Amino acid sequence: MTNKHGGDIYKYQPRYDFSANINPLGVNEAIVTAARESLQDIANYPDIRCGRLRSALALKLHVPEDYLYFGNGAADALFTLVLAGRPKKALLVSPTFAEYEQALQTVDCDITYYELDSSKDFSVTENYLTALTPDLNMVILCNPNNPVGNTIPHELLLRILKRCYELNITLVVDECFNDFLEKPNYHELTLELGDYNNLVILRAFTKMYAMAGLRLGFLMTADRELLAKMNSVSQPWSVSIPAQAAGVVALNQEEYVAKTRAYIKNEQEFLCEALAEWKIQYFEPEANYIFFYDQIDWYKELLEEGILIRDCSNYRGLTKGYYRIAIRTRLENEALIKAMRKIKYEHKQASTKMEFEGSR
Amino acid sequence: MTNKHGGDIYKYQPRYDFSANINPLGVNEAIVTAARESLQDIANYPDIRCGRLRSALALKLHVPEDYLYFGNGAADALFTLVLAGRPKKALLVSPTFAEYEQALQTVDCDITYYELDSSKDFSVTENYLTALTPDLNMVILCNPNNPVGNTIPHELLLRILKRCYELNITLVVDECFNDFLEKPNYHELTLELGDYNNLVILRAFTKMYAMAGLRLGFLMTADRELLAKMNSVSQPWSVSIPAQAAGVVALNQEEYVAKTRAYIKNEQEFLCEALAEWKIQYFEPEANYIFFYDQIDWYKELLEEGILIRDCSNYRGLTKGYYRIAIRTRLENEALIKAMRKIKYEHKQASTKMEFEGSR
Repeated sequence: MTNKHGGDIYKYQPRYDFSANINPLGVNEAIVTAARESLQDIANYPDIRCGRLRSALALKLHVPEDYLYFGNGAADALFTLVLAGRPKKALLVSPTFAEYEQALQTVDCDITYYELDSSKDFSVTENYLTALTPDLNMVILCNPNNPVGNTIPHELLLRILKRCYELNITLVVDECFNDFLEKPNYHELTLELGDYNNLVILRAFTKMYAMAGLRLGFLMTADRELLAKMNSVSQPWSVSIPAQAAGVVALNQEEYVAKTRAYIKNEQEFLCEALAEWKIQYFEPEANYIFFYDQIDWYKELLEEGILIRDCSNYRGLTKGYYRIAIRTRLENEALIKAMRKIKYEHKQASTKMEFEGSR
Repeated sequence: MTNKHGGDIYKYQPRYDFSANINPLGVNEAIVTAARESLQDIANYPDIRCGRLRSALALKLHVPEDYLYFGNGAADALFTLVLAGRPKKALLVSPTFAEYEQALQTVDCDITYYELDSSKDFSVTENYLTALTPDLNMVILCNPNNPVGNTIPHELLLRILKRCYELNITLVVDECFNDFLEKPNYHELTLELGDYNNLVILRAFTKMYAMAGLRLGFLMTADRELLAKMNSVSQPWSVSIPAQAAGVVALNQEEYVAKTRAYIKNEQEFLCEALAEWKIQYFEPEANYIFFYDQIDWYKELLEEGILIRDCSNYRGLTKGYYRIAIRTRLENEALIKAMRKIKYEHKQASTKMEFEGSR
């Protein structure tokens, strides 16, 4: 069993983990307390309706309660969606989060890949509209995209949604990192749910609320038939009692979320400055991670320094040389920069020596 | 979203819940402590290999570590098994646990039902062997069966296993309630795993360790190809950090398990005596629940007394009149008996009155 994803700290036991894109401020005390207190009830089965969580989330997001489907992490909701929707033909962009492909393969879906252009910073552009053909059943977009960290221009996203609606294609927009954007409301599609029942929005609690180990994600859609099918193809008790309890309390942590956003923005600049100084080609980050390209094998060399980053070479559409780092606390970011500086210095020494020896 | 299962205390909010077959002694303090302490790590993703839990369980059950697959409850492992195995034709008995049918339907499996005979106490007999035909891909048996609570004679089970092996049928034996049997080792098939790679054993932590709300189950098989397929069709992080931590500690609670078995045995007798006194037709219970048949609408009448039991009329192969009660604590069992006695008395009064009026 190998992990294609970041965050496998159990295998590598790094001093610092920059491979998983989790809120650097860590888990909020109120959330831990809610999970802890709920442990007294674990002899019971979880509420299959996630009743309290459902009400709280519907109220917060201004969506009807029956638009919501909760899962054991967003990945669970995604796999269930695909199993219920059984798309025969789907369109993915590359590069993007690998789980979409894995989920679609469970139903033998024929997948077409729209290759994002590295010379255009892997952006989704108007040209993408031409890839939306009537034979497609499902289209998945990640906004902001993972691992690139860029968003789709909102006007274009709305055009994509409309085109999908006209062509009877289910559009799945993964907004799992939306919470970390400077203006999350501007980018999200929640308001469109009522008008477009072909729209499915995927969201996670795990990232912003730093509860990846507790597992909680959800999706929203006005397609009641799809939701009924999802319930029929999945076990009823997928969301644990502590995850439900933590989720309810997480929704109240607005100050923590605002603080996180401000913190991320500051650290984004801090890390990008260092990358720029070393002339490392990074892609303008909009969320809580930075995607870059460089000739040095940063994954290998940083691991030797006890720092785990995400080697993105196994993403479809990427090659050796692409890396992703999470934005962590100032202390961790400083440790990363220090280690990178050391590695840069060693490479410079080595190349100077080679040049010197070559000129003799 | 309706619950076909027991344990929906959120909808009914009963004073006493006899509908879910959970250890009446409740969750063990050591297990809660382990889960609680693990909450400090929930910002991390769970270990996808469930490394510590895997080692501990393999050691305890004397099975190779790579025979194990962990899930978000046994139901998760079951759904993933079916999705990976993609049986075209399967055999179930009726009545049995409803999730098998639901799981098989997710892959459009053609299901044949072997009807257990009520006049033979719904036992699996030798005649079952004739139902094992070469066109079958998967056979699921629940041992002890749910909701009946009886076991399959071990020699017969071994013959079923061999016949399935010869016919290239995957035999899934759900041993989720094995822990509650008087002689669990006698009934389990773990020792056969190495010789029969068509055997899959399903197990739960949720019932014996009273952690249904935390979700942890697993399956065991020597079929490495099937296990690899299961990993490819499921998300990698299905078992949460607190579930993994609790599972490791649960494996050490041998005293608690022994105490539970003794307790259950005692309460089995206590409840059965009452049922016998009222001439209610119950089926000899071997696990932690009692299945019975009666004309009174026990579900409805007990619910009016604040007691939730399992109405089994919606099980395939059963009709109105079949009920299942969990074996609970002495205090709860006394409350149940008291409520049943009251209901019995009222019925007797009513029928006496009718007889009296009829005789006028």
